[in-house]
Parts: sequence; C-alpha cells; structure tokens
Amino acid sequence: MKIVVDANVPAAEACFGTLGEVVRVPGREIDAATVLDADALVVRSITRVDAAMIEEVKRSGSPLRFIGTCTIGTDHMDEQALADHGIAFASAPGCNAEAVVDYVLASLATLAERQDFRLAERRVGIVGVGNVGGRLLGRLTAMGIECLACDPPRVEAESIEEERTGPEGLAGFHDLDTLIDECDVLCLHTPLVSEGPHATHHLLDARRIAALAPGMVLLNAGRGDCVDGRALRQRLAGQGDITAVLDVWEHEPAIDAALADLAGIATPHVAGYSLDGKLRGTHQIYRALAHHAGLPARLTINDLAPPPPVARLVLDGGLSSEEALRLCMRVVHDPRRDHDSLHREARRLGMAKGFDGCRTHYPLRREFASLELSLREGALGLAPLLTGAGFRVATD
Amino acid sequence: MKIVVDANVPAAEACFGTLGEVVRVPGREIDAATVLDADALVVRSITRVDAAMIEEVKRSGSPLRFIGTCTIGTDHMDEQALADHGIAFASAPGCNAEAVVDYVLASLATLAERQDFRLAERRVGIVGVGNVGGRLLGRLTAMGIECLACDPPRVEAESIEEERTGPEGLAGFHDLDTLIDECDVLCLHTPLVSEGPHATHHLLDARRIAALAPGMVLLNAGRGDCVDGRALRQRLAGQGDITAVLDVWEHEPAIDAALADLAGIATPHVAGYSLDGKLRGTHQIYRALAHHAGLPARLTINDLAPPPPVARLVLDGGLSSEEALRLCMRVVHDPRRDHDSLHREARRLGMAKGFDGCRTHYPLRREFASLELSLREGALGLAPLLTGAGFRVATD
Ligand SMILES: NC(=O)c1ccc[n+]([C@@H]2O[C@H](COP(=O)([O-])OP(=O)(O)OC[C@H]3O[C@@H](n4cnc5c(N)ncnc54)[C@H](O)[C@@H]3O)[C@@H](O)[C@H]2O)c1
Ligand SMILES: NC(=O)c1ccc[n+]([C@@H]2O[C@H](COP(=O)([O-])OP(=O)(O)OC[C@H]3O[C@@H](n4cnc5c(N)ncnc54)[C@H](O)[C@@H]3O)[C@@H](O)[C@H]2O)c1
Repeated sequence: MKIVVDANVPAAEACFGTLGEVVRVPGREIDAATVLDADALVVRSITRVDAAMIEEVKRSGSPLRFIGTCTIGTDHMDEQALADHGIAFASAPGCNAEAVVDYVLASLATLAERQDFRLAERRVGIVGVGNVGGRLLGRLTAMGIECLACDPPRVEAESIEEERTGPEGLAGFHDLDTLIDECDVLCLHTPLVSEGPHATHHLLDARRIAALAPGMVLLNAGRGDCVDGRALRQRLAGQGDITAVLDVWEHEPAIDAALADLAGIATPHVAGYSLDGKLRGTHQIYRALAHHAGLPARLTINDLAPPPPVARLVLDGGLSSEEALRLCMRVVHDPRRDHDSLHREARRLGMAKGFDGCRTHYPLRREFASLELSLREGALGLAPLLTGAGFRVATD
Repeated sequence: MKIVVDANVPAAEACFGTLGEVVRVPGREIDAATVLDADALVVRSITRVDAAMIEEVKRSGSPLRFIGTCTIGTDHMDEQALADHGIAFASAPGCNAEAVVDYVLASLATLAERQDFRLAERRVGIVGVGNVGGRLLGRLTAMGIECLACDPPRVEAESIEEERTGPEGLAGFHDLDTLIDECDVLCLHTPLVSEGPHATHHLLDARRIAALAPGMVLLNAGRGDCVDGRALRQRLAGQGDITAVLDVWEHEPAIDAALADLAGIATPHVAGYSLDGKLRGTHQIYRALAHHAGLPARLTINDLAPPPPVARLVLDGGLSSEEALRLCMRVVHDPRRDHDSLHREARRLGMAKGFDGCRTHYPLRREFASLELSLREGALGLAPLLTGAGFRVATD
C-alpha cells in the first residue's frame, strides 16, 4: 500500500510505515497528480480536497480508496464527493481536546492568582459539551469544582432532561441564560453554527454580554464568531468589571487589537496546539486506515510521544492546593507566554501577520498528562486534585 | 543565658535554644523593661535600639551584653551608643543577597521571554558590587553572561585598577557612564549614600536616563532614591523604548502609581524576601552570639531550612537552555506574581496600604539553591548553566 502523507504530519513514518510505503509531500503541493498511484492520502487542513480534485483523481485511474485528515475540522474536505466516489474518509475529532482543556485550566489558575480568588469556590458554566467541553466538565468535576452545562443540541438529540443531572453524572444541563445568571466563569466551546434553532453566531450578543455580572470571567476557546467582539470590547473598555480570556476571535488573523489589549489573556488560536494532540491526530487516522485496510493497528499513542522534557516533578508538603496546581500546570503550559507573544508580534509585524506568525512558529508544547508527579508524604493530600486536573500522579 | 528574641525571627528556638533560654517578645513591644534580666537581645528592623533605650537598659542594671539584628540594615540601631556602653553588636550583612540575585535572574528571564531576546547575548552592567552585586556578578559570569562592574568606592578602597579585570576575575571595573554606553541591562545594587564623592541619590538622574539606549533594561533592587523616578516615568511614558524593572521606589510605600504602571516588572521591595534569607539572618546572629559567649555553634544553615515544597525536578532533553532556565527559576520564584499582587492590592487598598500589605502578607518563598535538579541523558548539557544560575544539579 502506498500512502501519501502531508510533510507536516508528525510521526507519519512510525505509524503509517507499519501499514505500507509512506511518501511525504508538502501539504500545499498535494493534488490529483500526487496521488496517481497512491492507495491512501493523509492530509491536514492546508490541503483542499474538493469535488474537482476527487473527480480528477478518479479520472486518472488512481487506486485511492482512503483519505484521512489529521484534524478535527473537515471544512477543507468535500465529504459528499468522497462518499459519491466510494473513497473512505476519516477525521480526528477531539484529537486536541485535552490541550484546550489544559489551556482553560491554566488560564483560570492564572486569573485566580492574579485576582486572588480560589478556583475551588467558583462555579463554572460550560457552553458546548462536546469533545472539548465534555472533557473540561470531567476534569473540573474531578477537581471538585461545581459546573453547569449548556448544550441544547445534545439535550434535544439525546433526550436529556434539562435541569436534571446530566449524563456526566454531576452537571445538570441548563439554558445559556441560567449559566449567565448562576456562574462565575463562562467557558464557550461551541462550533460556529450559522443557522437553525441552535445557531451560535453571536451566541454571546450585546444583551448577554451586558447581563454578565461584575467579576465574571468569560472564556472563549470555541469559535470567535460565537461572541460579539464589539460589545465585549465596549464592556471591557467601559465598565472594565469582567475579565475576558480569548483564544478565538472574529476576523482572524486581523483581529480587533483593542479587544486583545483589554483581554486578561489573549492568545492566537493556539489553545489546542500540543504535540500530544497532533500525535493523537496521526494516531486516529492510522487506526482508521488500518481498520479500512484490514490490518492490525499495534501502535499505541504512547509509542509515538517522545519523552517529555520535564520528566518528573517531586512535591513535598508546604504548598496550598491552589499553589500546587498552578505550579504543576505552568511547568507544562503557561498561557501568559502565548499572550505575551501575540502582543509582541502584533507590535512588530502588525496584527494579522503577528497572529499568524505566532501560530506558524508555535513552540513545542506538551499536555498535563505528560508530566509525572511524585508526591512525598507531606503532599499526598494533593493527589486527588492533581489527578483530577489531568496529571499522572505517583507516590515517591 | 537568657536571650530575648523578636517573635518574628524564624527558627529562634532551634538556634538560640542551643545557647540559652529563649524568650519571645513581639518586636514592637521590646523596650528596656523587656531586657531587664536578659543577657542577649535579638531584634529585627521594627525595634528601635537608640541611645535612650540603651542608657535605660544600663541604668536598670540589666546584664545585657549582646544585641544582634537579623537584618542587613542597621538604621534602627545606634551602634555608637552600643559601643559606648560595651554592648557587643552584630548584624546580618548579605543574608538576603541570594534572594535578590534570584529576583534579578528571574526578572531578566521573564523579559527575555516576553521580548524574545537571548539572555546569553546581553551584556549586563552591575552598579554596586557588594553583597548583592558581587553575588549577581558571580552567577551571571558562571552562566557565561558578560558583565561590566561599577563600584568606585571599592575601586578606591581596594586600589582596584579601573578598566582592568577586577577581583572577580572576569569583569572589569568601569565608571557608570561606560556601563550606560556599553551594556544592554543595567542593574543597580547601591545603598543610599546622600553625600560625598560617591553619593548615590539620583545616581541615575535625568541626564543618564536620557542616555539609556533604546531597548535597554534598567533594574533597580538597591534603593529607590538612587533613580530619579520622575525622569524615568517621563522616559517610559514618552518614548517607551526602554524597560524598567523596579523593586525599590522613591517615597515607599506611597510610590508613584504611574511609574508602577509603566514598569515591565514592578514589585513592592520584596526582592530579598526569601525564607532562606531570613533563616540565614537568624543563623548569622546565632553564630555571632555563640562566638560572643564562647560557646560552640554546631548548627548549620541546612539544619534550619525546612524541606522545600518542590523537592526535585527531573529534566530530560528537548528544552533550549533559555527554556530550561526559565522553567527552573519559575518553579521556585516568579516575579510576575509579586507584580500582579502589587497592582491588585494598590487598586484595592490604595498604593501605600497595598504596597505595605503585599510586604506584610508575603507568601513563603524559597531560593533557587533549594531546588534539586536531576538531569537525564538528554539534558546533561544544561548542567553548567543551571549550576551557574544557582541550582543544585545532580544526574539522574
Ligand atoms: N481554540 C482552539 O485551539 C480549539 C481547539 C479545538 C477545538 N476548537 C473549537 O472548539 C469548538 C468545540 O470543539 P469540539 O471538538 O468540542 O466540538 P464538538 O462538535 O465535539 O462539540 C461541540 C458541542 O457544542 C454543542 N453546541 C452546538 N451548538 C450549541 C449551542 N447553540 N449552544 C450550546 N452548545 C452547542 C454541540 O451540541 C456539541 O456538543 C469547535 O468550534 C472547535 O473548532 C478550538
Ligand atoms: N530590594 C531588596 O529587597 C533588597 C535586599 C537586599 C539589599 N537591598 C539593598 O541593596 C543595596 C545593596 O545591598 P548590599 O547588601 O549588596 O550592600 P553592600 O554594602 O554589601 O554593597 C553595596 C555596594 O555598593 C557600592 N557603592 C556605594 N556607592 C556607590 C556608587 N556611587 N556607585 C557604585 N557603587 C557604589 C559599595 O561600595 C558596595 O560595594 C542596599 O541598599 C540594600 O539595602 C535591597
């Protein structure tokens, strides 16, 4: 089997090499000619796989039977055309969800330190309880933090009873305005849905932004268009009594610089950028291709990940639980770095180029689960919290 | 021997208890009556030991023969009056110097990340090469960072030849204007000297502040009055092309809020606030008292320090030397926390109360040397740099 793989897909040889012959091609150069004699194609979002390309591939007599994208997004793929031509398709939903959850937890921990509040005492509203929101709900709940969930499409599709304990066992499902009324932190993890009863364009519109109580934290790591940026900017510039954490923006990469200046944490759509997430993307497509080809998929995700640069952290007594959490999180990921980079590069190159530059040259980042924590006697009490937050905890 | 000790001196029982009977008294309440039957008194800067008090002590027939202050400053002591009355005196010079050096290194590492420069490529000018400046010079040099030193009183007193390699073996001694011309970072560690040829009041005056090249970093952790704060504020507000790191200020605690807003890192005179430094202060006075009383001083400083909350950090390959440095430093001390606290408390309580509040409620902080680093194969190359920066490095 000949497998053409985008040159930027990590660990492709290690994975796909066990299934066939791997040929690497830069994502921008992949076209019908590239896959003339290929059985499978593995891309990222930079390669457009549209109806025209697929028809050309088929016309050329290519044996191509499988296309996978190592990304959660599928906007660059014409799934209907693939189906019409009998080409199997796979994407990697949720592959970077853990990284986004890391970002959310590390951002909230940073605000808690900066504003001197205890995360444990905040109630968090999660809007959009899919791959990201669901994992966030799981980790926060395991950390003992109270959550309220909002996901009307799931309530509808899964006939979940609203206001009752949800399928996660702990958080009830509520409507958005209830979350706005009752939570201290509101985390948006919704996709952009332009139409229909559950449209998310400007889900946080001027009215809802005005309804946020002073002291609230609004975090958006879903899609930029889910928040009315202009209304948010006006609230921040005028009353300045809420805090915004923004990883996604309207009009990326030419985002509103004034809004970025006013946000407590402003990052260039990198919440999901972890090496582990990328490797998980590769691995999901590897498993899909193996399944498609009837071959065994023996590699686990752990076989792909290099040893983390911070191999182990040994804690003893003396830290409060909030200090310990912050410390462990920041050893792995500190969103202030990305905030500082965005502002620096925007000043240096202008917003659009600076925003994209930060994304293109994003430093290698690992996930919380890559860090092994050893707890000595005095720190044993931290185990449930740190495990809940996603770290691997051993006793020393 | 009866030893009266300020209630806020840490580890007093452990130390002074080996020499005699320890009686704890709140520093503000210590007066002549307190030491009526005491042989020794150990204070901090809050207790004024002036001529009147000493005379009253003597008149009362107290056996007092030793007074020690666990601080580097001695402004609260009348040393002449003590000498006149035959009372031995000791202070703890340099006890918190390592903590200040930690602060300087961590602050520079933070700016290097924020502004995207390599610390290794900067030339650092150190003004005032005493307990703090000398140790800073030692650590920077060990890290391979080029330094220029300026200390005219030492040049004069020790007949050091200027412009030649100095006694530290690496940095030549130069005049201040040469440092301003030739360095990228200027660190002030001078005491306040009001008069004479080496006066330091507004050592950095408007002329010298204007002479700082764009891009320069000016760090002051000596005394606030060594810098003309108004001129610095104007340069930061106007051109905004240099970066200030300020731990000390004119008119503390009612410091210039606008200057604090403009500083890249602004902290409330806490650079020296480490637990290790306080314990070193206790230990220095313990040794002086033992010596005075002709008793053996068997305890070492390591006997006093509790185990650090971060017991050990194990590094593997994958980090650049700058990333590794930053990571290790921040695990122990992150000046951004103190910067954020100052701004938050100043907003909450007003500047003077906020500034003092941050100092009074300063969280427990350890020094770099408390952290044990284990380096795996891939990180072995980092050993010289991390050792130079002050960490304890072992191989795993
Ligand atoms: N910032 C980043 O780096 C980053 C990384 C990963 C994902 N994302 C984005 O985050 C969003 C969520 O990702 P995911 O993988 O969890 O997607 P998902 O499809 O698994 O989950 C989205 C959830 O949102 C719910 N939803 C849809 N409309 C809603 C509405 N009106 N109100 C409340 N909930 C609604 C859906 O029912 C679904 O459960 C996507 O837009 C994705 O592109 C961003
Ligand atoms: N920010 C903090 O938390 C903190 C902590 C410790 C010390 N300090 C302050 O830092 C300063 C230095 O402390 P130290 O313990 O190193 O003192 P030190 O007395 O050991 O050293 C001071 C040095 O400055 C030199 N000096 C004096 N006048 C000078 C001039 N005009 N130009 C250049 N050099 C000059 C002296 O010769 C001496 O070598 C003191 O003012 C001290 O109060 C601040």
